[in-house]
Amino acid sequence: MAQSAEQLLPYIAATFDQMPFNRLLGLQVSRFADDEVEVRFPWAEQLVGNPIQKILHGGVIATVLDVAGGMMAVASALGRFSDIDQSELVQRFGKMSTIDIRTDYLRPGRGETFIATARVIRAGNKVAVCRMELHNEQGVHIALGTGTYLVG
Amino acid sequence: MAQSAEQLLPYIAATFDQMPFNRLLGLQVSRFADDEVEVRFPWAEQLVGNPIQKILHGGVIATVLDVAGGMMAVASALGRFSDIDQSELVQRFGKMSTIDIRTDYLRPGRGETFIATARVIRAGNKVAVCRMELHNEQGVHIALGTGTYLVG
Amino acid sequence: MAQSAEQLLPYIAATFDQMPFNRLLGLQVSRFADDEVEVRFPWAEQLVGNPIQKILHGGVIATVLDVAGGMMAVASALGRFSDIDQSELVQRFGKMSTIDIRTDYLRPGRGETFIATARVIRAGNKVAVCRMELHNEQGVHIALGTGTYLVG
Amino acid sequence: MAQSAEQLLPYIAATFDQMPFNRLLGLQVSRFADDEVEVRFPWAEQLVGNPIQKILHGGVIATVLDVAGGMMAVASALGRFSDIDQSELVQRFGKMSTIDIRTDYLRPGRGETFIATARVIRAGNKVAVCRMELHNEQGVHIALGTGTYLVG
Repeated sequence: MAQSAEQLLPYIAATFDQMPFNRLLGLQVSRFADDEVEVRFPWAEQLVGNPIQKILHGGVIATVLDVAGGMMAVASALGRFSDIDQSELVQRFGKMSTIDIRTDYLRPGRGETFIATARVIRAGNKVAVCRMELHNEQGVHIALGTGTYLVG
Repeated sequence: MAQSAEQLLPYIAATFDQMPFNRLLGLQVSRFADDEVEVRFPWAEQLVGNPIQKILHGGVIATVLDVAGGMMAVASALGRFSDIDQSELVQRFGKMSTIDIRTDYLRPGRGETFIATARVIRAGNKVAVCRMELHNEQGVHIALGTGTYLVG
Repeated sequence: MAQSAEQLLPYIAATFDQMPFNRLLGLQVSRFADDEVEVRFPWAEQLVGNPIQKILHGGVIATVLDVAGGMMAVASALGRFSDIDQSELVQRFGKMSTIDIRTDYLRPGRGETFIATARVIRAGNKVAVCRMELHNEQGVHIALGTGTYLVG
Repeated sequence: MAQSAEQLLPYIAATFDQMPFNRLLGLQVSRFADDEVEVRFPWAEQLVGNPIQKILHGGVIATVLDVAGGMMAVASALGRFSDIDQSELVQRFGKMSTIDIRTDYLRPGRGETFIATARVIRAGNKVAVCRMELHNEQGVHIALGTGTYLVG
């Protein structure tokens, strides 16, 4: 029976939680659909770059943008299959890899909760290109990214 | 009395260690000179992205490349001053920020120790552009980056 | 008397036409406002990359995205001044320069007219970051770009 | 009989000259080997961006870097085949496309002859990543680029 990307969210979340660095940063997949993926994490002292300004380290921002983009690339590739089970899903995540990513830092990373969203702008059999944005809980636009992913 | 960038390494290392996310990842500045900066970190289970392949998370790679590039940008800006003390150094680090960065992932992040090196390719009063590379202890080239930094 | 960016369009267009490579490609500024810049050009045989597929050369696409982004960066910087005359405008264009740009190619460059639009996503005294898109006359999204510009 | 990439240079040059925009800019392939590709062009009034400073338009620089990188990606893919004829070569060039490219502008584009060189930094069946540099005839480093190309 065919499943939509959204129905796979529980499996995705489980796979995601097995990635140690995602867990270290407190990342959680909050949306996983054909057209958008959302990853969230709460503020934490250990994610700070500059201890005086109390802002997120640039590496944290780059990480969450890449993670959201990579999941979006997988979700996009899944969208073209009518039937998929969890083992295939895990396999697809294993094959997916980031080729390159550009991160643009717009404003200091301040807030209580951070929300990264990703959308596909080029969906191919081999390569997907995604655009990502990071906002805080008040809607302040903190960063954006453009990533190219190997999906096939 | 004039100091070279290299003489500042102890101060730099101290400032660097006050950045929580650098400490979480185990990053250490091993070289800080006018023409090159080097940042190292050992393999750690919590830095893994894919738990089956046991390779570094892409976000860890992006982070260390950005950190090395940012320090190189500061070192480059310092090189044009004849006299600088620690408080000014801390101030300069506080003002320095990444504008944008591109990361290219070349090979899986496997190894025991990882070494990120950075060099300046455009040194200006306001903006510096740096090139970064990540190798493991066996010289395998894992990733490269190009970053644009606000320094003035 | 204060002038808006839009009132400067005739001067901008004149300055723009003095740039030989813009003229060679047939680029024209069709909108110059604080929040958006638009540059257009018609299909021409000499702009083709692949002669069999009859599609725009990637370099043409990269050029028009960079031009639109650079003008947007200048327009954005102008927006913060209450009074400006043409000579200052020409001077500002002369100082503006692209630091770096990323171009993502999404679909083959086919069409009769091509429209590049640019918006500012980070406006600073020294550096501006812009996002650009290229569409054809039927609204097909051909490419996008992200550029960092030195404006001060 | 097996041919090296270098022996294909005459065919490559012929194919290259059929691309209208390359001809418009005066680009010529001067080296085509497994490990390096070189593209040259002479100064020309029509390639100028800023008419007062008499420097190359940024779009010209982006174009030649992309062209050199794209040819390098093809040369790299060819290197893995023992036998290839001209018709297959033309076909391969037709399939090759730029996914994304970053251009960093380092110094004003002044000179009499400009030389773009490209090297592969990630060679894959589907995707190749290349690094490119632009120098003038006096060895002044004007720009660099990083491009991701679809080759398979």
